[in-house]
Amino acid sequence: MNILLVGLMGLVVLGDGPVMESVRKVLGAESNVIAGTEEAVRKAYPWVDLPAGLQPDGYRLKTVTRDGVRQVFIVGSNERGVLYGAFGLQRKIALRQPVTALDEKQEPYAPVRWVNEWNNLDGTIERGYAGRSLWFENDNIRADLSRASGYGRLLAEVGINGVTVNNVNANPRVITAEFLPQLARLAAAFRPWGVRISVAIDFSSPQKIGGLDTFDPGDPRVAAFWKQTVDRIYGAVPDLGGFVLKADSEGRVGPSAYGRTHADAANVIARALKPHGGVIFYRGFVYDHKMDWRNLKNDRARAAYDNFKGLDGQFDDNVVIQIKHGPIDFQVREPASPLFGALEKTNQAIELQITQEYFGQARHMVFLVPMWKEALDFDLQAKGTGTPVKALVAGKVFGRPTGGFVGVSNVGLDSNWTGHPLSMANLYGYGRLAWNPGLSSETIADEWVRQTYGHNPRVVATITNMLLNSWPVFEHYTGPLGAQTLTEITGNHYGPAVEASERNGWGQWHRADARGIGMDRTMATGTGFIGQYRAPVARVYESLATCPDELLLWMHHVPYTYRLKSGKTVIQHIYDTHYQGAAEVEEFVAEWRGLRGLVAEPVFSEVLKRMEYQAGHAQVWRDSINSWFLKTSGIADERGRAGHYPGRTEAEAMTLTGYTEAAVTPWETASGSKAVVCLGSGARTCRASLRHQGGAGQYVVDVQYFDQVNGASKYKVLVGDKVVDEWVASDTIPTRKPDGHSSMRRRIGPLALRPGDVIQIVGQPDGGEAAALDYVEIQKERP
Amino acid sequence: MNILLVGLMGLVVLGDGPVMESVRKVLGAESNVIAGTEEAVRKAYPWVDLPAGLQPDGYRLKTVTRDGVRQVFIVGSNERGVLYGAFGLQRKIALRQPVTALDEKQEPYAPVRWVNEWNNLDGTIERGYAGRSLWFENDNIRADLSRASGYGRLLAEVGINGVTVNNVNANPRVITAEFLPQLARLAAAFRPWGVRISVAIDFSSPQKIGGLDTFDPGDPRVAAFWKQTVDRIYGAVPDLGGFVLKADSEGRVGPSAYGRTHADAANVIARALKPHGGVIFYRGFVYDHKMDWRNLKNDRARAAYDNFKGLDGQFDDNVVIQIKHGPIDFQVREPASPLFGALEKTNQAIELQITQEYFGQARHMVFLVPMWKEALDFDLQAKGTGTPVKALVAGKVFGRPTGGFVGVSNVGLDSNWTGHPLSMANLYGYGRLAWNPGLSSETIADEWVRQTYGHNPRVVATITNMLLNSWPVFEHYTGPLGAQTLTEITGNHYGPAVEASERNGWGQWHRADARGIGMDRTMATGTGFIGQYRAPVARVYESLATCPDELLLWMHHVPYTYRLKSGKTVIQHIYDTHYQGAAEVEEFVAEWRGLRGLVAEPVFSEVLKRMEYQAGHAQVWRDSINSWFLKTSGIADERGRAGHYPGRTEAEAMTLTGYTEAAVTPWETASGSKAVVCLGSGARTCRASLRHQGGAGQYVVDVQYFDQVNGASKYKVLVGDKVVDEWVASDTIPTRKPDGHSSMRRRIGPLALRPGDVIQIVGQPDGGEAAALDYVEIQKERP
Repeated sequence: MNILLVGLMGLVVLGDGPVMESVRKVLGAESNVIAGTEEAVRKAYPWVDLPAGLQPDGYRLKTVTRDGVRQVFIVGSNERGVLYGAFGLQRKIALRQPVTALDEKQEPYAPVRWVNEWNNLDGTIERGYAGRSLWFENDNIRADLSRASGYGRLLAEVGINGVTVNNVNANPRVITAEFLPQLARLAAAFRPWGVRISVAIDFSSPQKIGGLDTFDPGDPRVAAFWKQTVDRIYGAVPDLGGFVLKADSEGRVGPSAYGRTHADAANVIARALKPHGGVIFYRGFVYDHKMDWRNLKNDRARAAYDNFKGLDGQFDDNVVIQIKHGPIDFQVREPASPLFGALEKTNQAIELQITQEYFGQARHMVFLVPMWKEALDFDLQAKGTGTPVKALVAGKVFGRPTGGFVGVSNVGLDSNWTGHPLSMANLYGYGRLAWNPGLSSETIADEWVRQTYGHNPRVVATITNMLLNSWPVFEHYTGPLGAQTLTEITGNHYGPAVEASERNGWGQWHRADARGIGMDRTMATGTGFIGQYRAPVARVYESLATCPDELLLWMHHVPYTYRLKSGKTVIQHIYDTHYQGAAEVEEFVAEWRGLRGLVAEPVFSEVLKRMEYQAGHAQVWRDSINSWFLKTSGIADERGRAGHYPGRTEAEAMTLTGYTEAAVTPWETASGSKAVVCLGSGARTCRASLRHQGGAGQYVVDVQYFDQVNGASKYKVLVGDKVVDEWVASDTIPTRKPDGHSSMRRRIGPLALRPGDVIQIVGQPDGGEAAALDYVEIQKERP
Repeated sequence: MNILLVGLMGLVVLGDGPVMESVRKVLGAESNVIAGTEEAVRKAYPWVDLPAGLQPDGYRLKTVTRDGVRQVFIVGSNERGVLYGAFGLQRKIALRQPVTALDEKQEPYAPVRWVNEWNNLDGTIERGYAGRSLWFENDNIRADLSRASGYGRLLAEVGINGVTVNNVNANPRVITAEFLPQLARLAAAFRPWGVRISVAIDFSSPQKIGGLDTFDPGDPRVAAFWKQTVDRIYGAVPDLGGFVLKADSEGRVGPSAYGRTHADAANVIARALKPHGGVIFYRGFVYDHKMDWRNLKNDRARAAYDNFKGLDGQFDDNVVIQIKHGPIDFQVREPASPLFGALEKTNQAIELQITQEYFGQARHMVFLVPMWKEALDFDLQAKGTGTPVKALVAGKVFGRPTGGFVGVSNVGLDSNWTGHPLSMANLYGYGRLAWNPGLSSETIADEWVRQTYGHNPRVVATITNMLLNSWPVFEHYTGPLGAQTLTEITGNHYGPAVEASERNGWGQWHRADARGIGMDRTMATGTGFIGQYRAPVARVYESLATCPDELLLWMHHVPYTYRLKSGKTVIQHIYDTHYQGAAEVEEFVAEWRGLRGLVAEPVFSEVLKRMEYQAGHAQVWRDSINSWFLKTSGIADERGRAGHYPGRTEAEAMTLTGYTEAAVTPWETASGSKAVVCLGSGARTCRASLRHQGGAGQYVVDVQYFDQVNGASKYKVLVGDKVVDEWVASDTIPTRKPDGHSSMRRRIGPLALRPGDVIQIVGQPDGGEAAALDYVEIQKERP
């Protein structure tokens, strides 16, 4: 309806008399909307009673009836506030909230409400799952910036006022004189929506593009380079928000090259920005990725605090330390970073990741708002009680001049911006939380669903319920109890790979071995990480008796037989939650199916397809994680499920023609740790067949196969000589081998099967993809 | 959404620059709506290209982009046209049709688009089923005319431009000098919506209120009375539409009292109206209601033609003959009146009945648009082919200066205007057809459902499907093959009463006897009615070979064993369609139940209640009609249903305590032609009990009882000593005895019953209502 409203306002009715008055009524001129800044409204409508004192970007909505005509005033503290007020009024209408007697004030919780876009100049997006960049292509800014401008509108609708347009792993070209006209054009696309652009910079720019032989922040020539460069940029983009800097992190150079501190690095640039009102976001994501894993005292989680706490007070007032919400890197469950509570004389911002890097990459549905709320609401007791992370980052606790929220968004050219249609709820929710972190997850989900899918009560109830449960569900089938996500941390961050965290320098260790699991981060016997929290918080985490179960393995190393507060052992909890999580996604699929006809095509089908995939992949996770722990711990599942798969026949146990057995790595990501592959190319086909052992009846047949990025194998399934299904495995999941990323389920049926029926899978390889098969599972149709 | 749109238009944005431009965009000022008459728009916007020549009440919608701003022009030929254009634009928005590039002309098909309201001055409404009058109460106009004004808006939304405010069985007081100020106030309530009022007059007014001793239209004093009276009315209501006159019909006096013609009567009044631009609608519904039924050549269907054809050319140009769509009186199936095709030099209007007098009186759901379309599209071949009724009444065939559509609306104070929530579709559909009879029934149903219940695809599909099937369904369970409705034609026109049509002077005979059924209206052997049609049409009806089945019994008398074009005999068709119709309504109930949660309360429950009632009453119809024909014809139902009711136990066959047997009239309206009644009053109760004969299981128990207007009996149902249901029979169906109107079904269960369980009904009479019972029917629960 928004579009229609847009199409219809502004009204001239020519003529008087009762019928023309009716025309006015029908077309709506009985109400007027008046929008303007506080200053403009006071001048033009001196009779309107407006209390003083709106925060920047804030607005009032106020209905005033005068001479029998109802006037709705949208009054902004500044122009951006007027725009937010217009969207606020629109949102109320879309949510069917009453708009006839308004009198309310809305102000943002914090001045910084930004997004970062990890867009590369070549048009790719690091950790982006929705297509290519909206504005970069082929090392230039696109000619057509209509999608960029549309994104500006989208951001403004939820109150975001800044966008960092390039990857934090920055290409220095973006701040060269040569590139400036293009940058100015991009800024112009966002400007009408009150969104200021900013750029990520390369700390070695003085050397790489400045013609200097150094980038030492202590060198006056380097300071001069930054001043000159910044002045030039502001000449082209006078409202630039500032810079974002990733330094001394994951291979990016930083001040350590010259023995300088992060404060030295930040301040030299901050001073160049200062006269223009710009700020520099200095990322707190600094750690050593070549740590010795053999040293049990080493701990990457300590890094942000260890790097920045000692510098508190040394950063200029236009520096903001940008701190990821947890100490590691957007894992499925992390405690709030202790650094938030440690900085008292330094501006800070929380970095939340909207793009689902570790959350199924827009192939799985995970609504992140409840997780963010846990971090934002966590009381770090930085100044007695009542100092939640949100208040700390907004600068409210220690009276900092700026601070707030940064979300890593990474939208792309896909028509729905975010890849998975339901992933947009995360972008929406991020913006709403940045404006008002007091909103509940339930309210945000409800708002988004109603504005996106309408007010049908069943649709609203089903989708909000799915959204609100999706984070725990994802946790159930991935990494348990704070052991991190258990994904491929050195690669694509997608499917299961339990040992990827271990025995390397990246420091995402969970320390699982034959007897137990968890990082001992206690002060008493472990890495001392817990000591980075203020004492009342540290006390809770330090003791096994009070440490919450969901962070147990983050804080402590325990044997598998350790009993949780639920009474279950750790190992049984792992088995149970993984079966539960996979079943919960199957339930999502059923619930979504119930919305057929109620959610418009093509969205209904698109979500259904993704959810069916997610259900299959949740089962891959379930079996991978459970197999690994079953084998590693040697402790059986009390309920007899793990390692036993009713109805399953391994491909390697079938009658094979052409197919050969192959070990899969990591071993836990294939059933029985093996697949069969069809080596060769051209028109070669391989066959695997089995006989149906069950009785006559209706059965669902799941074929577990591997769909890699490097080929498009063909599969055909026959019962007897009848083809019952065929497909091409042409998905683009980023892996080039059979593993926990490429493992995929094809569900066929229900089919009528009789005892002895021969089921045959015919595979035809393509490119580097060997039409690999893991197993077939035959189950009675459920009612 | 209309209300929200209304609440939000008219826009002032203070300030310039890109952000304030965005505010304008968000709030919609990128478009302007400019509304005015053709004349005003040409003057104010001379640059707009407007082709000349809009019909009165017509409008254009046109989008023009100028200086980058999109302007939507609503241009009316007159003020009413502007108003219709505003509603037209609103309708497009509500229907989600594109409104960004408009360029269209809309003109009404005919100048006359009126409604008649059979409202009495005491506040009652003849044949009204939605409460009391919106404007009359206690012989005066109500003080509060907000509902009247709201009705004006409703009429304007669908293009109706006239309302006759009082019953055609008119009280002369409405045109007295004393009443004029009140009439003027009522006119003022409708005027802003472009709706002109008119009044129904009593032809004897010169005598009754004029102080004359005559109302002879040939008397100069009578002509003077009419001139003086009309001049006075126009002094108070300068835009009065005119008069409606029912004369020489059903006891109303007319020109026959003085040996004058209808033309004499119409013209004397027309001449008084002429100087003011008023018209007189002279109703064609003139017939002798004391005809001799023994004379097989007599035929009421001939009356309109016989009365008016001979006067063609004698009526003044501001007289319109108002002709009911069929020759009798809004029966479930009638041919188009031949009079439409017979008048060449006389204005005419078609009278359609929106109020469901013969269509279940807003207790049954019947969408009448498909029926009206059949009449409007019927080609009477009045001037060769291509002369459908719609073109004839619009004056297009013989070039008449005026003509069009009159709908008998009879809305009332019920909050939904029409009683049954779905009956509003008929009022909507009437207006849309009067504007454009070329619209399909499907389009009209779809438009109405979307505007009323939103765009949920399932809701739209379910309700439009119900609406479009409802007329055939109603026909299936009432009067077949053009035999008329078979209802109580001398009374309330509601429930079944097959013989009410026969052996009286009202002339709605169907002539059913032991051997056959139907009126022989042929030219060869019958009443000659068919000869009133032009030869090509008459030929089709005259021959049994070409007469369409659905009008067979209207045109011909045939034996029950006559085979229809379907191959079925007439008698078997009767049995089959009645079982089919009752089953179809049960299906409606199931379909409506499927909309739970999708249609808002309280409408969902209100419709469900009415539909469940309709399903029970359709069964009363089924059994009454089939019983009558089974007994009268003596021919069994081939499929063994009629007269055999599995699971049914007659009340008179139960163990009775207090209850006594009573014959029901008409006999066919009770199962076994008998009921049991509990005579007495006060706290007296009676009991009827039976033993469950079937096996153990879940059963649905239907209790068929009688709910009259003259009491509120109480009923209680027990299984063993457990009360399983109780209710009060306090409905107000207009009958004071057990019959086909009051017969009602109470559905209980599913209940668990075991063999031998005693089911007992306890009745407690009240007033004139004897807690009568017809039968109990026990059926296995269907899955």
